[in-house]
Amino acid sequence: MGLVAIATRGSVSPPSRSSSRVILAIDRVDRPLSWIKDLVENTLDAVAGYKLGLPFLVRYGLEGFKEIGELVDDKHLWIIDLKLADIGTVMAKAIAPLLGLGYNAFIAHSFVGFRDALDRLKEALEKHGAELILVVSMSHPGSAEVMDKSTGDILGVVKRAEPYGVVAPATRPGSIALWRKLLDRERISAYIFSPGIGAQGAKPGDAIRAGADYEIVGRMVTESENPRSVVEYINSVHAEISRG
Amino acid sequence: MGLVAIATRGSVSPPSRSSSRVILAIDRVDRPLSWIKDLVENTLDAVAGYKLGLPFLVRYGLEGFKEIGELVDDKHLWIIDLKLADIGTVMAKAIAPLLGLGYNAFIAHSFVGFRDALDRLKEALEKHGAELILVVSMSHPGSAEVMDKSTGDILGVVKRAEPYGVVAPATRPGSIALWRKLLDRERISAYIFSPGIGAQGAKPGDAIRAGADYEIVGRMVTESENPRSVVEYINSVHAEISRG
Repeated sequence: MGLVAIATRGSVSPPSRSSSRVILAIDRVDRPLSWIKDLVENTLDAVAGYKLGLPFLVRYGLEGFKEIGELVDDKHLWIIDLKLADIGTVMAKAIAPLLGLGYNAFIAHSFVGFRDALDRLKEALEKHGAELILVVSMSHPGSAEVMDKSTGDILGVVKRAEPYGVVAPATRPGSIALWRKLLDRERISAYIFSPGIGAQGAKPGDAIRAGADYEIVGRMVTESENPRSVVEYINSVHAEISRG
Repeated sequence: MGLVAIATRGSVSPPSRSSSRVILAIDRVDRPLSWIKDLVENTLDAVAGYKLGLPFLVRYGLEGFKEIGELVDDKHLWIIDLKLADIGTVMAKAIAPLLGLGYNAFIAHSFVGFRDALDRLKEALEKHGAELILVVSMSHPGSAEVMDKSTGDILGVVKRAEPYGVVAPATRPGSIALWRKLLDRERISAYIFSPGIGAQGAKPGDAIRAGADYEIVGRMVTESENPRSVVEYINSVHAEISRG
């Protein structure tokens, strides 16, 4: 699935209208919110979207999501990544205050299954036009201990949940290639988001080359002296791959 | 493992000194914090501990944990249940502001594996004398789609992580009995915590009878007109089983 597919996937709302394939993970919680707002404003026209996670929630709370939410638009992916992994009623209850703030995608674990779990979550998201993104494999060695042995069963969950995207690790390109093949074989129209670029060891472009649609980058950008220039560098690597 | 074992499990700190086997899940987020504080104060001498989850975090934030944290003691289990399921660095970063508030146990998912995941989390918890509790099976039907097919691999993670306790569902007593057998066979000294009592369908005592050490009860208590009397009723059911 290339950039053309990204631009034309008609069923998805809201699509990313950016040509960038970089999702910036806001993973610093040692700065004031104003620093994060500046980071977002300075990179807005260079990235496909942003990802905010559990460390952000614990540190800045619902108020933090509201404040960053002021910058939310329909041209980017605004992903809340709490790695949701509970029964359906609890996941729906947990995210209720976050819905309606403009964030348009939420990450959950496929491992918890569909029935009375992801089905309920998806229902809650759809009411607010938000998308579901499912973790199918992770970037750390521990992913091989249980999760990566369950690929067949996880695929079954993905088929039922029909997510907007799946998360597979840039640190193991073979996992991305496998998931690209499985999604194509099952005619599941889902983007592949790949974390693990930079601090975790993968290089910009590794995941795109293996079949991912977006690379999720955190510390490599956020801990740089000049975040925007790092994003631009990664965009140029991706453009090079597209030109092929 | 009975009450005697609970009282003598010497390696665990801090142990629950209560004779109750009820963990009260604070699952209401439609009331002011003062209501929750009253609930805790009114049930303190009748329960083994409390569990606060992701809905609480989103609704009340870190400030909420600090405020309830004023009631924390070393006679009860004070469990933070974010169903942690990420890479080690992210889990450790996320809970950092919550450590040191007195909460003495955190729930994470075993399916994320040990290496660079639960190993790092455990290290972070141990520095603050807090315990790790691992989900091994869940109370909803979706648990059968992936998780319950991975029991052998999940047991491998539990063996490496040596958690204080595991979470297995009261809604499927067979799962509790299986985990009790597996833990005993592998000589893993871990308590079994069982959610799913009440609103999810299991009856008080179902999990204890199947081999659990604690029953986690939420809505059945928190949505009652008289929460304390419901807790006392459940305690009496448990006492009956112990005599039995």
